[in-house]
Amino acid sequence: MTTRREQTSQESRELILAAAADLFAAKGYRQTTFADVAERSGISRGSIPWHFGSKEGLLLAVLERSTGLIRARLGDEPGESEEDPGRSGEEGLDRMAEAVAALFTLPTTKLFVTLLVEALEPGSPIQGRYVEIHKTLREHCRRSLERLPLPPELPADALSAVIIGAGIGVHQQWLLAPALVDPDRALGTLRTLLKTAMTATGR
Amino acid sequence: MTTRREQTSQESRELILAAAADLFAAKGYRQTTFADVAERSGISRGSIPWHFGSKEGLLLAVLERSTGLIRARLGDEPGESEEDPGRSGEEGLDRMAEAVAALFTLPTTKLFVTLLVEALEPGSPIQGRYVEIHKTLREHCRRSLERLPLPPELPADALSAVIIGAGIGVHQQWLLAPALVDPDRALGTLRTLLKTAMTATGR
Repeated sequence: MTTRREQTSQESRELILAAAADLFAAKGYRQTTFADVAERSGISRGSIPWHFGSKEGLLLAVLERSTGLIRARLGDEPGESEEDPGRSGEEGLDRMAEAVAALFTLPTTKLFVTLLVEALEPGSPIQGRYVEIHKTLREHCRRSLERLPLPPELPADALSAVIIGAGIGVHQQWLLAPALVDPDRALGTLRTLLKTAMTATGR
Repeated sequence: MTTRREQTSQESRELILAAAADLFAAKGYRQTTFADVAERSGISRGSIPWHFGSKEGLLLAVLERSTGLIRARLGDEPGESEEDPGRSGEEGLDRMAEAVAALFTLPTTKLFVTLLVEALEPGSPIQGRYVEIHKTLREHCRRSLERLPLPPELPADALSAVIIGAGIGVHQQWLLAPALVDPDRALGTLRTLLKTAMTATGR
């Protein structure tokens, strides 16, 4: 049972996390202060360290929350309902393409780009978490690909690095120049490319 | 004719740029000071603003230099020697794949990731330059693709955003976890995917 007090604490925590995620994405991790987070979230400055210890603790919690949002979007593990694996080649590809496209909505993409630089710092506390997120995405993609009739010269693990990479890189091009790059069209073309390769195997 | 004095000035400029590029990649643009650049380059601190005006001027010059290195690597414009366009489908693909792979050697990749965050800042002085670099890469890729026998459902412009995106995203995954991602294998698989799609068209 959740007491009133616990509920309020949980709500404050969520408000702080949402505000911090927006601020990290908009102005970067280093440029964001507890005062900024307090102002945006409407939660008093002093209670932020009470919830998260340090700014580093807040960063980890923001990343944890984003990973949770990604996991929720990816939905059920692919390959769990194997009722008709032969039929579902194209369908599986469509579902996977939709999941990859959905991952890259503006706020999350921007946040991940900003934090990537922090993750690349030597000794960064979020590097491990970041590696894990990329790994989760690749594994999810790989399991979807393994259900498709792809030839052996297109191994699922290498292909999943390409697909997740294209998702990341296409959205970075789009963030910089929204008028020049259409991410839906680009990722739709990647899907067509995979379908064409599946057709080429004649299976 | 270049005088002795001009040559020395040119050399100092180059030493400063190389040191700044390394430092921006290693510790980020904001964390790098003129004193750091002076120490690493062996050029006196005072002469850095003489060459570049401000730190922003130095950033622009570093990006300009990296763009020059990229242009040099991409080499001649594809499609200029049209002696036998029909023959060179696979060859063109191989040359393009090599060029994309060569772009992403460690120091340049890391620098571009670090500066991407700067470029995404509202009002960033390097945003325009960054957009131009991505555009140059896509255009180069598009012109190579237009020489290949690809079907109309795989348009060269959308495909070039995918290929440049995959190059960017695969290398970011690799920067974070070199033991988990093999960029040569991933980009080799992308090349195979394109070749398989070309075969599927039966041309």
